[in-house]
Amino acid sequence: MRLKSYVCGQWHEGGREATLLRDATTGAVIAEASTEGIDFQRVLAHAREVGGPALRALTFHQRAAIIKSLARFLTERKDEFYTLSYATGATKSDSWIDIDGGIGTLFVYASKGMRELPDSRVYVDGAPEMLSKSGTFVGQHICTPLEGAAVHINAFNFPVWGMLEKLAPTLLAGVPAIVKPATATSFLTECVVRRIVESGLLPEGALQLVCGSAGDLFDHLSCQDVVAFTGSASTANALRTHPSIVAKSVRFTAETDSLNSSILGPDAAPGTPEFDLFVREVVREMTVKAGQKCTAIRKALVPAAACEAVVEALRASLGKIVVGDPRLEQVRMGPVVSLAQRREVREQVARLQREAQLVHGGDGAFEIAGADSDKGAFIPPTLLLCRDTASATAVHEVEAFGPVSTVIPYRDMDEAIALARRGGGSLVSSVFTADDAAAAHLVLGLAPFHGRILVVNRSCAKESTGHGSPLPHLVHGGPGRAGGGEEMGGIRGVLHYMQRTAVQGTPDTIVAVTGRWMRGAKPRDPGVHPFRKPFHDLAIGDTFFSAEREVTLEDIERFAELSGDRFYAHMSEADAARNPLFGGRVAHGYFLVSAAAGLFVDPAYGPVLANYGIDGLRFLKPVKPGDRIKVRLTVKEKSLRPTQGYGEVRWDTEITNQNAEPVAQYDVLTMVSERAIP
Amino acid sequence: MRLKSYVCGQWHEGGREATLLRDATTGAVIAEASTEGIDFQRVLAHAREVGGPALRALTFHQRAAIIKSLARFLTERKDEFYTLSYATGATKSDSWIDIDGGIGTLFVYASKGMRELPDSRVYVDGAPEMLSKSGTFVGQHICTPLEGAAVHINAFNFPVWGMLEKLAPTLLAGVPAIVKPATATSFLTECVVRRIVESGLLPEGALQLVCGSAGDLFDHLSCQDVVAFTGSASTANALRTHPSIVAKSVRFTAETDSLNSSILGPDAAPGTPEFDLFVREVVREMTVKAGQKCTAIRKALVPAAACEAVVEALRASLGKIVVGDPRLEQVRMGPVVSLAQRREVREQVARLQREAQLVHGGDGAFEIAGADSDKGAFIPPTLLLCRDTASATAVHEVEAFGPVSTVIPYRDMDEAIALARRGGGSLVSSVFTADDAAAAHLVLGLAPFHGRILVVNRSCAKESTGHGSPLPHLVHGGPGRAGGGEEMGGIRGVLHYMQRTAVQGTPDTIVAVTGRWMRGAKPRDPGVHPFRKPFHDLAIGDTFFSAEREVTLEDIERFAELSGDRFYAHMSEADAARNPLFGGRVAHGYFLVSAAAGLFVDPAYGPVLANYGIDGLRFLKPVKPGDRIKVRLTVKEKSLRPTQGYGEVRWDTEITNQNAEPVAQYDVLTMVSERAIP
Repeated sequence: MRLKSYVCGQWHEGGREATLLRDATTGAVIAEASTEGIDFQRVLAHAREVGGPALRALTFHQRAAIIKSLARFLTERKDEFYTLSYATGATKSDSWIDIDGGIGTLFVYASKGMRELPDSRVYVDGAPEMLSKSGTFVGQHICTPLEGAAVHINAFNFPVWGMLEKLAPTLLAGVPAIVKPATATSFLTECVVRRIVESGLLPEGALQLVCGSAGDLFDHLSCQDVVAFTGSASTANALRTHPSIVAKSVRFTAETDSLNSSILGPDAAPGTPEFDLFVREVVREMTVKAGQKCTAIRKALVPAAACEAVVEALRASLGKIVVGDPRLEQVRMGPVVSLAQRREVREQVARLQREAQLVHGGDGAFEIAGADSDKGAFIPPTLLLCRDTASATAVHEVEAFGPVSTVIPYRDMDEAIALARRGGGSLVSSVFTADDAAAAHLVLGLAPFHGRILVVNRSCAKESTGHGSPLPHLVHGGPGRAGGGEEMGGIRGVLHYMQRTAVQGTPDTIVAVTGRWMRGAKPRDPGVHPFRKPFHDLAIGDTFFSAEREVTLEDIERFAELSGDRFYAHMSEADAARNPLFGGRVAHGYFLVSAAAGLFVDPAYGPVLANYGIDGLRFLKPVKPGDRIKVRLTVKEKSLRPTQGYGEVRWDTEITNQNAEPVAQYDVLTMVSERAIP
Repeated sequence: MRLKSYVCGQWHEGGREATLLRDATTGAVIAEASTEGIDFQRVLAHAREVGGPALRALTFHQRAAIIKSLARFLTERKDEFYTLSYATGATKSDSWIDIDGGIGTLFVYASKGMRELPDSRVYVDGAPEMLSKSGTFVGQHICTPLEGAAVHINAFNFPVWGMLEKLAPTLLAGVPAIVKPATATSFLTECVVRRIVESGLLPEGALQLVCGSAGDLFDHLSCQDVVAFTGSASTANALRTHPSIVAKSVRFTAETDSLNSSILGPDAAPGTPEFDLFVREVVREMTVKAGQKCTAIRKALVPAAACEAVVEALRASLGKIVVGDPRLEQVRMGPVVSLAQRREVREQVARLQREAQLVHGGDGAFEIAGADSDKGAFIPPTLLLCRDTASATAVHEVEAFGPVSTVIPYRDMDEAIALARRGGGSLVSSVFTADDAAAAHLVLGLAPFHGRILVVNRSCAKESTGHGSPLPHLVHGGPGRAGGGEEMGGIRGVLHYMQRTAVQGTPDTIVAVTGRWMRGAKPRDPGVHPFRKPFHDLAIGDTFFSAEREVTLEDIERFAELSGDRFYAHMSEADAARNPLFGGRVAHGYFLVSAAAGLFVDPAYGPVLANYGIDGLRFLKPVKPGDRIKVRLTVKEKSLRPTQGYGEVRWDTEITNQNAEPVAQYDVLTMVSERAIP
C-alpha cells in the first residue's frame, strides 16, 4: 500500500524513494510513504489562500457545527480505524484512547465553541479598558484568526488523537492545518483523513496531510503561520532554531520529553483505598500503549516506609499482564511501535539500571502471546527501584519511552516535591492522598514545574480520568523539559491560533469593530419597543429608554413584606444612619432591578420568551425614598441557537436616578424567538 | 562617575575594562560601566533563593501595595531623574514619557492588582471545568509564580519606562527581576534603582541591576526563568537561540524592530479634522525622542489624492521643529542617543532614498540650537515620499531608528491594508477616519499583523493617548518582525511570569488548593448566622441553609403590582401556556432572588454593610405557584480592603425547589465590616 499525502486539493503519492511502514507485532511491511515531488511552498499557499479565507468566512458557531458533524461522521466509521490501529501495536483499549479520545476532543471543542464563543468572527478578549476620563477614548482587546497555516507535527503514539486534539482548536480559530504525522503510524492518520476528505464537511484547503518527510516546508514559513510540535526534545530544538522560525518569530509550541511523577501521599499506607488506587494507576500507566505516552508515570514517589509494600504490590500486579499480539483478547499489552524503538528503550533501561535496581521485567526472557519476539517489538513491563535518591540523576533525565517506571522512596513531602521538580519541568504529576491539606501542599509545590496535576482519593477515583489522559478542557503541556508549550485548555487552545490586538478609539468605533455594543456608544432607535422584535430584527445598539418612577418609602415597606428581606439598612432610619455607606434608609437593590424590569418590560405575548439570567450587576449608588429612577436597555450581543428556534440576546442595562447618575449597571439575558409569534 | 551594578544585595563597581557613556548632546563622558567580576550564577541564585521566596510570601494585594508605595516614592524624586535624563538627548517632554510614563505604569498595575487580582497567592484562572457526571471529579486552572528570575533586557531609548513597564507585572506576579538596561543610557536607570534600593520598599533580592555586559548570565538559565527582551531583531535572535534558552525551553519574549504604519482614511480629505490630526500625529511621532521609539510611525499611508497635501502639511510643520540641546526651552527635538546611532540612521536613510524621494531634512546642513553637530548626534526630521509602491521593499524592511518617516500613497483601503501588512508584523498601526465602517474594515484587515491599533477621529482626539504610547492596560508587542512577544495588557502581563497548571480532583481538593469555595465542596457550619460574623471571622465554606418558602399565585400578583413587571409569562395562564419554555404561569426571576434574600438575610444591625452586586445569575428551572423554594448561601471568596475598614465577601448562592432541583445559581457580593459593630 502506497500512502498518499493530501495536498492542494489532491492525493499525491510521492516519488520512488519511500519509507517502509511495518506492523509492530509481525514486522510485515504494511505501507510505504513518500513526499517526493510535493511543492511545500504551494502547500502553504493553498492553506493560506484557499483554506484560510473559507474558514474565516464562517462564524465560530458555524465552525463548531462543522466540527460536531465531523465528530459524528467519524464515530460512524470508527470500526475501520480500530482494525487498522492494531498494526501500530495498540490493543483495543489503547485504540479507544486514540480513536474515541480523539473524536471526543472534537465533540468537546464543538460544544465549547457553541457555548463559550460568540456567533461571530471576532473574539472579544476581556472587558473594555477605560482609558480616558470622559469616556471618549477606550480600549478593547480582540482576537482574529492568523492568516497563515497551522503546521502540526505529531508523534507516532497517537496517530488519531494527536491529529484531532490539535485540529479542533485550530479549525475553531478559523485557521487551516497542515498535518504531518510521524511516518511510522501515518497509515492510520491517512485513513482518517481520507474519510474526512470524503465527508466533504471541511472547506477545501482547511486540512492537508503530509505522509512522510516535510521537505523544505519550514523554509517557507511566515509570521502568520504557527507550528505545533509533539515529539522528542532534540527534534523540537532543531525546529525551534530553524532560521525561518527565528527570523520571522513564527509561533512555535512544543510538547516533548517529560519525566512525570506520581506521588503516594504520606497518609496512604498499605490497606488504604489510595494505596490501592496508586498501584493500579502506576500499572495502568506502565502498560497502556506499552508505556509510549508522554504523560506516563516514569517516577513513582512513595513514602520510604511504604516502599517495599508498593514494590511488592506492583510486582504482583505486573506479573499478571499478558504481553503479546494486541489482536488477541487476553492480551493486556502489545509491542512498542518498532524494533528501533525497542532498541532505544532497552538502552535507556540500561542507563537507568546503573543507578536503580531492576525489580520486575527487564532484559530476560518473557512470555509473548501469539507473536514472535524477533519480529514484534515486545518489551516486558519493567520496574526499577532507585534507593540512592541523593545522587541519582538518570531517573530524572532519561525518558524510557516504553513500559518502564522507577519507584523512588521519599522521606517527607518536601523531598517528594524536590524529586518531582528534578524532572526539570513535566507535563503532569499526580498525588494519591485522602488528606486535602497534604494535597494542597503538594500541588502548590509541584505547580510551577507542571502543566497538569491530578489529585486522586477514594471520593473521585471512580470518576477520575486518570494520570495519563490530557483532556480538551484542560491545558496539555509543561515547562522546561516538557517543551514549554501549551495546547488545548478549552478556548485557550483556540486563542493560540489567533492574534490578540488592542484596539483603541471611541466606543462607537469599538462597536463597529467587535459587533458588540458597549456603554458610551450611540444608542439606536429600534422604531418599536424592542420586545416586539423577533431575534433577527433586533439590531446591535437597539435601545429602549423607560419612563421614570419615584421610589417611595411605601415601596420599600411593601417590598420588605413581600420578599421577607427586612435588612436594617432598608427598614430602620436609625440603624441605616449608622451604616458608613448609606447614612439613612435605602431601597433594596433587588427592588431596583425588579422595578427596572417593570419599567422596561413590554408585557404582551411576543417574541421574548424568557429572562434567563443577569451578569455583572453592580449597585453604584444608594437609592433613597423620593429618588426617581429610569432605565436604559440596549441590545449588546446576539447569539442564535439555530436548531432551537430562538437566540440569546444580551442587553446592556443601566438604571439612573433623577440626577442622571447611574445607580445600577448589569447585563440582562433573554431568549428571543426567531419568529414574531413563537 | 563609575556606574555600579546592584547584585546579591550589594553595589558592585566592576573591573578595569569599562564602557564609556556619553552625553548625547555634548559628547562628554559622563559615566563608565563595567560588570567585570560579577558572578552571574550567584546573581541568579540570589534572585531565586532570596528575592523569590520573599515575594511569594506576599499576596497579590500586598505586592500591589508595595508597587503603589514605590510609585509614590519615585514621584517625589522625579526632578533628579528629569535632570539626568537630558544627557540621554531627551527633551523635557520626552522625559515625561519615560519618567512619568514609567511611574504611571506602576500606579496602573498597583490599581489593577488590587481590583482584578485576589488577595491571595494563587491566581484562579477561569471557571471550574466539570469533568464528570456526578461532580466528584472537576478541573480548575491555577497560576503560580515561576520560581526563577525574570531577566529584563531593555533598550536605550526608555531607561526608566523600559524598566518599570516590565518590573510592575513581574513583581505583581511574585517574581524577582534582574534588570539589564542598554549600557548607553544606564546611568539614568542606575539612579532610579539607587532610589528604589534606598526606599527599602522591595524585599531584598526582588530587584537586581546589571550596568554593562550580562556576561555569562544566559548560560545559567533554568526552566523557571523568563527573559523579556526589548531591542534589535538581530540581538533578539542571537539570544533566542542561545543553547540554554533552547535546551530548557526558557520563556523568551521579544519586542524588536517594527515598521509601523499610520493610515489616513479615504474620507479624511484636507480640511477635515482627521486630516489635521493625522499630520500632527506623524510630526509628533517623528520628533518625540528624536524618533527613537519602536512604536513610531515609519510609514504614513495616505490616499493618493491627498498625497501632495499631506506632504506639504508635513513639511510646513516639520520646518518649525527646533532641533538642538534638549536643555533649552525652545528646543522641540534633541539628538539621537549617540554618534554611532546617528551613523546607523544615516545609512538607513540612504537605503530608503534608493526607492523614495527626500522631501524634508536629510543629509544637508540644518540649524542646531545651542549645540555642536560634530559632538552631538543631531539629525533633522527627515521625510521621504515613496511613489513606486509596487516595487519598493526597503520602506517595509528598514527601520531608520531616528526622526524618519516615509509617505506612501494608496489607491483603496485594501491596498492600504496590504502596504501595512508588508511590515511583516508590527507593534502598532493607527487609522485616522471619521467613518466607523471604514475604521472597522481597516482594523480587521490590520489586526492579524498588529499588536495594537489606534483609531482617531474628532470625537476622541482630545483624549487619545496617541499612536506611539503603549499603555499598561493594553498589550504591547506584535507578531513577526516586531518579535512575536506580548508585554503588559493588564493582568495578561502578570500571567506571563506565572505557570498555568490544570488541577484535577474533588471539589474539596480544589478548594484546599485555591482557597476559593466551589459548588460540590463540603459546606462548613459557621456556628452562628454568617451575617453576624465580621470579615475576619468568616471562613471560606461557611454556609447558611435557609428555611423553605412556598411561592403562591398571590406572591406573583403582588410582585407584578409592586414592580410593574406584568410580563405575560407571569400574568396569563393562557399566554404562558403558549410559551415553549414554561407551559404555564411562572414566578418572576426577580421575585425569586428577592425572596431568596428574604430567606437568607439576617436583618439586625451588624457587620454586613451592603449588597453591592450579583454575578453570573442563571435561572435554571421555572418556579410555578405551589413550588417551595429554599436557599443555600456559602462564603466563596474574601478580599480585604485594608484602608477602608471592610472587605468584600462573595457568596455562592443556590435556590432549590421542593425536589432539591436548582432553580437559580449566582454569586452575591457583599461588603462586610472588619469589626463586629461598624
